Amino acid sequence: MNNTHALAEFLAGLRYEDLPEAVVARTEDLFLDWLGSALASQGRHPIPLFQRYARRMGPADGRSRVLVDGSATSAYFAALVNGASSHLVEQDDLHNSSVLHPATVVFPAALAAAQDLGRSGRDLILAAVAGYEAGIRIGEFLGRSHYRIFHTTATVGTLAAAVAVGKLLGLDARQFVHCLGSAGTQAAGLWEFLRDAADSKQLHTAKAAADGLLAAYLTADGLTGAQNILEGEQGMAAGMSSDAEPRWLVDGLGSRWALVETSFKFHASCRHTHPAADALLALMQREGLQAEDIARVTTRVHQGAIDVLGRVVVPQTVHQAKFSMGTVLGLIAVHGKAGLVEFERFALQDPRVAAFRDKVGMQLDAEVDGAYPQRWLGRVEVLTIDGRQLHGAIDEPKGDPGNSLSRAELEDKFRRLLAFAGERGEAEAARLIDASWRLHALESLEAFA
Amino acid sequence: MNNTHALAEFLAGLRYEDLPEAVVARTEDLFLDWLGSALASQGRHPIPLFQRYARRMGPADGRSRVLVDGSATSAYFAALVNGASSHLVEQDDLHNSSVLHPATVVFPAALAAAQDLGRSGRDLILAAVAGYEAGIRIGEFLGRSHYRIFHTTATVGTLAAAVAVGKLLGLDARQFVHCLGSAGTQAAGLWEFLRDAADSKQLHTAKAAADGLLAAYLTADGLTGAQNILEGEQGMAAGMSSDAEPRWLVDGLGSRWALVETSFKFHASCRHTHPAADALLALMQREGLQAEDIARVTTRVHQGAIDVLGRVVVPQTVHQAKFSMGTVLGLIAVHGKAGLVEFERFALQDPRVAAFRDKVGMQLDAEVDGAYPQRWLGRVEVLTIDGRQLHGAIDEPKGDPGNSLSRAELEDKFRRLLAFAGERGEAEAARLIDASWRLHALESLEAFA
Repeated sequence: MNNTHALAEFLAGLRYEDLPEAVVARTEDLFLDWLGSALASQGRHPIPLFQRYARRMGPADGRSRVLVDGSATSAYFAALVNGASSHLVEQDDLHNSSVLHPATVVFPAALAAAQDLGRSGRDLILAAVAGYEAGIRIGEFLGRSHYRIFHTTATVGTLAAAVAVGKLLGLDARQFVHCLGSAGTQAAGLWEFLRDAADSKQLHTAKAAADGLLAAYLTADGLTGAQNILEGEQGMAAGMSSDAEPRWLVDGLGSRWALVETSFKFHASCRHTHPAADALLALMQREGLQAEDIARVTTRVHQGAIDVLGRVVVPQTVHQAKFSMGTVLGLIAVHGKAGLVEFERFALQDPRVAAFRDKVGMQLDAEVDGAYPQRWLGRVEVLTIDGRQLHGAIDEPKGDPGNSLSRAELEDKFRRLLAFAGERGEAEAARLIDASWRLHALESLEAFA
Repeated sequence: MNNTHALAEFLAGLRYEDLPEAVVARTEDLFLDWLGSALASQGRHPIPLFQRYARRMGPADGRSRVLVDGSATSAYFAALVNGASSHLVEQDDLHNSSVLHPATVVFPAALAAAQDLGRSGRDLILAAVAGYEAGIRIGEFLGRSHYRIFHTTATVGTLAAAVAVGKLLGLDARQFVHCLGSAGTQAAGLWEFLRDAADSKQLHTAKAAADGLLAAYLTADGLTGAQNILEGEQGMAAGMSSDAEPRWLVDGLGSRWALVETSFKFHASCRHTHPAADALLALMQREGLQAEDIARVTTRVHQGAIDVLGRVVVPQTVHQAKFSMGTVLGLIAVHGKAGLVEFERFALQDPRVAAFRDKVGMQLDAEVDGAYPQRWLGRVEVLTIDGRQLHGAIDEPKGDPGNSLSRAELEDKFRRLLAFAGERGEAEAARLIDASWRLHALESLEAFA
């Protein structure tokens, strides 16, 4: 029995009753957090393109819902559009050591399928846990070499989404192996788009959710897949990784709940900027510094941060600005935070932010790099204009498991995300928050539309 | 201007009037040949799964047609199902040096889009030429290292399909770059399935056609993609090849017509078996040998044949038997040919074929490997039971450009493919043959349903 079979056995055997209460509650937290991200992108490029594509190619009705416009469609197109929507504002969750954003691929697929199949909130929670547990371990397995070229949320996301939908479809262990095979052989997504500020990140999450769903539905209907897609000689690791580590695939199955290790995003930017942002903020507060007091900031980072952020010098779009270390630190220094509103108003337009951006550099740091990706350490060196050398350090960025968001903070974030989209009022926010906190008791998922 | 931009300029500028007559005529040949392959798989696993998926997730009507059942749907699902259908019986075309099967990805996408957009036969021909010219060059660019792990028809097929549909949508050069970016970042497909006789090959061609179509439609609506998806530091070659050769991307654009280099399949098996099959057949005819006269066959092959065929020892399914060198040579030796009917009747059931299969081995040959993939040389060494050592050799397998099929042979092959499916009579075959030979003059593509 290879590791894929062992993982499939675990997934097939997983029951709602086996989930610790904290896992159930955290899944609800992650669900609300995801829902806010999906709704916040309403009306923003390129989401309307995906909505139009779904209307052009899909059915005019169905049991699944496109969140940004409430329209009814088939599960496939709901997964596609909701997958595109939920990653755009860069506020969705992240699992550190896998460098996977699980919510943006797992929930679009799982909610679409659960609505299509008429399943309950419990079923959705169980499916999401399965998707997170499998996806995170596969991301850890593929390692850093994979992430250097491939967008893990796109590639591994396809398998995570497939597993979640497969759980809703009641796949057995044999079928889960086929399902992983059919999902893994569709896994795609390259980082190349990033330097051009192209729209591929939305295409990636849309396709991961939809392709994963397709793999699961076809598997339930009898499609077979490779038996060893992850570790085989012509499988994912062989083709797309040089440092794959098989033991991660089955790490602590049933005892370690990887889902609860997932971090919430506090800043509205690429997670690679958060440790430095928090370290700078703490240092400025400690020293009572203003942006004008600072001559230079050197962020000491892991290699992954340089790979992902290093391409962006002068950001051309708000989305690209979320991948500019200098812009993020500029927003923190000048405006005290780097939320959605700050990005929209100041990331490209504020000359003080641009001036600060040009003072920021990144430097590879052996300690930070050694701790990554298990721990995302924040280290900054600041040179003040009066010549002082100051050091800032944080060990757990805001939103990490050890420094997580409370339900009150999550509700606040959700309300801000909805307000950002502008079209849903406070009553709607309260209704969706309430439904999310009662997810474990909901008989139907029609509330989410 | 990088090579992708140069290729995009060529694609945007390509006009029907620029196509040599021989290219137009060969496109019609390739279209008929593809149509037969698509129709031949009717009713065979796993095609009905894709038909059901399209009905479940897609619209109940539309301007595009699913070929195997004539149903109306949107362009996306027509591309998906027809893509799945046209590679199953392993009778569709192959371009040697790119190791790409262009028809099975280009025509499903192009026909679906042309029907959706109400385009003419000329438009379809132009689109197909664009798809072949781009796809073949990208396949050549990615090289042998890519094909060792990745199913080129799946990965590169996504870009070829996108280009064909992009041409129908009238993309300009700037848009073609975006379209290649969005297609390339979806490119996926691993060979791992092959050793398990899993259904992924159909999933691959289905998804390549449909994903390529999606990329083109979204591009036409404004989706942007990476500017250098093929050669960039985090692009396709960086992630999925170790011997990429940039010059192929623009090789002879406008003067070399790669489409006419495409080979037709004569035997109903993996193309890697054809050179040896033809060499054995020629040797047996020359020497007047019967299967019982032969004690041992050593096929001298290129490495790619070993990579693809080496996993299959005792085939479990008819489809897997098409990847068994021993079975193919057994059919040739015992029954004189390895067509669809021979595979269905004898590949798994005939003890004489199984006995011959066990006499066949593969050996890497430096001359054959050096010529590959530009030339697919056939070399066999036969030991007879009376102790003679005999050598058979052919330099161009039947169906190669220098040893191609005539229109009469193509018609005969088409009729056999339709008869294999069983549900369409001779009148229907004649109608479709006639429409294909008049493709350049057809105002509408409604005939193909």
